[in-house]
Amino acid sequence: MHKLGPTARTKVKRLPKRGHYDRDVVNEVLDAGFICHIGYVIDGQPYVTPTAYWREGGHIYWHGSSASRMLRAQKSGIPVCLTVTHIDGLVMARSAFHHSINYRSVMAFGTASIVDEPKTKEAAMRAFVERLYPGRWDTLRPVNKQEFKATTILGMELTEASAKIRIGNPVDDDEDYALPIWAGVIGLKTLVAGIGDDARLAPGTRKPSHLDSFAEDADFGALLKRYKSS
Amino acid sequence: MHKLGPTARTKVKRLPKRGHYDRDVVNEVLDAGFICHIGYVIDGQPYVTPTAYWREGGHIYWHGSSASRMLRAQKSGIPVCLTVTHIDGLVMARSAFHHSINYRSVMAFGTASIVDEPKTKEAAMRAFVERLYPGRWDTLRPVNKQEFKATTILGMELTEASAKIRIGNPVDDDEDYALPIWAGVIGLKTLVAGIGDDARLAPGTRKPSHLDSFAEDADFGALLKRYKSS
Repeated sequence: MHKLGPTARTKVKRLPKRGHYDRDVVNEVLDAGFICHIGYVIDGQPYVTPTAYWREGGHIYWHGSSASRMLRAQKSGIPVCLTVTHIDGLVMARSAFHHSINYRSVMAFGTASIVDEPKTKEAAMRAFVERLYPGRWDTLRPVNKQEFKATTILGMELTEASAKIRIGNPVDDDEDYALPIWAGVIGLKTLVAGIGDDARLAPGTRKPSHLDSFAEDADFGALLKRYKSS
Repeated sequence: MHKLGPTARTKVKRLPKRGHYDRDVVNEVLDAGFICHIGYVIDGQPYVTPTAYWREGGHIYWHGSSASRMLRAQKSGIPVCLTVTHIDGLVMARSAFHHSINYRSVMAFGTASIVDEPKTKEAAMRAFVERLYPGRWDTLRPVNKQEFKATTILGMELTEASAKIRIGNPVDDDEDYALPIWAGVIGLKTLVAGIGDDARLAPGTRKPSHLDSFAEDADFGALLKRYKSS
């Protein structure tokens, strides 16, 4: 399936030309980030929790949150909205009204459930680490039974989602272009600030080569893109 | 009121030592950002929308979203959860289980309503621009009546919120510190990538001095901190 919408709840109504429903576009925005905001409802009250996520093919997985307790009681799954947002720039127009933000976001709707099947869960835990740090999993002290049990991975199928993207210069009212008011775009970037040793490293322990790419001022977005979903 | 909780829904249950309920701490996390994720419920379905926000004293304001349509029908306000998240670093431990993220986040619960009172709305629109670009409002083509009407500002009182903060090195199991496995922290930073002129500037229009601080590689977090809430 190449289209993930539009559906009644994913259709971008305000500024519809910013909306995208192709699976490839949605995947690209998802794969460019690692923190999402999960929305869920308890007794009519919305909750929004930030957490680490990753995509594997047509599924999204994320690390357990307070929604997990709720899910343990409701094995059939709960409705969630998973939103990912990248801020690329600030857009300054000639009027306050046309100031805007350049961004890429995805809103995905689905039914979250706990990943319980051991093989799937183990693969998900591995991907959780490898997605950020390719090559790291095999260097670590292996996961023990208690840790395996204490880790909650949630997942949902990616079937209904939209991407919303704004790029480029401000769009002003026609008559305002003649005004001597400056307009333009401020770009933003997320970089590696540095990498530091833990204070309690065992003697002789050196930073492994799988982390060489996390050098000061490395483009963090580019590093995230290295992970290839199955 | 200096305390914003804990309440049943803001109490940090998982790793409670990361929770903070002091208004000053919550304000500091809020004032360090400008994009929040708003959660709301329509017919039992959660929605999470990213949008620009700012704080003025004991209130949070944000730019209208799809929740606005819903609010117009329900003048009494709707329950929302407003979440702000800053990612400061990646925490690598000796075991997969203790890998973590350094972050600062706030989850605020309240009743959102539309800011309709003209003086309050005008002040909020001004703050929306000045919060990001101090000195810019007075240089712009003034807001006209149609724009004033077409802009939706939502707001809520900040009465129930918690901050959750993780800083510093990994915390491994005692016996793992003897292992020859590297552990440490990768810091992340958001910088100005650059500032560019709109392609259609009127002849002779120059970048105004109020934007001088948005220079390439300027620390964006520090720039946001300049705005002083009333």
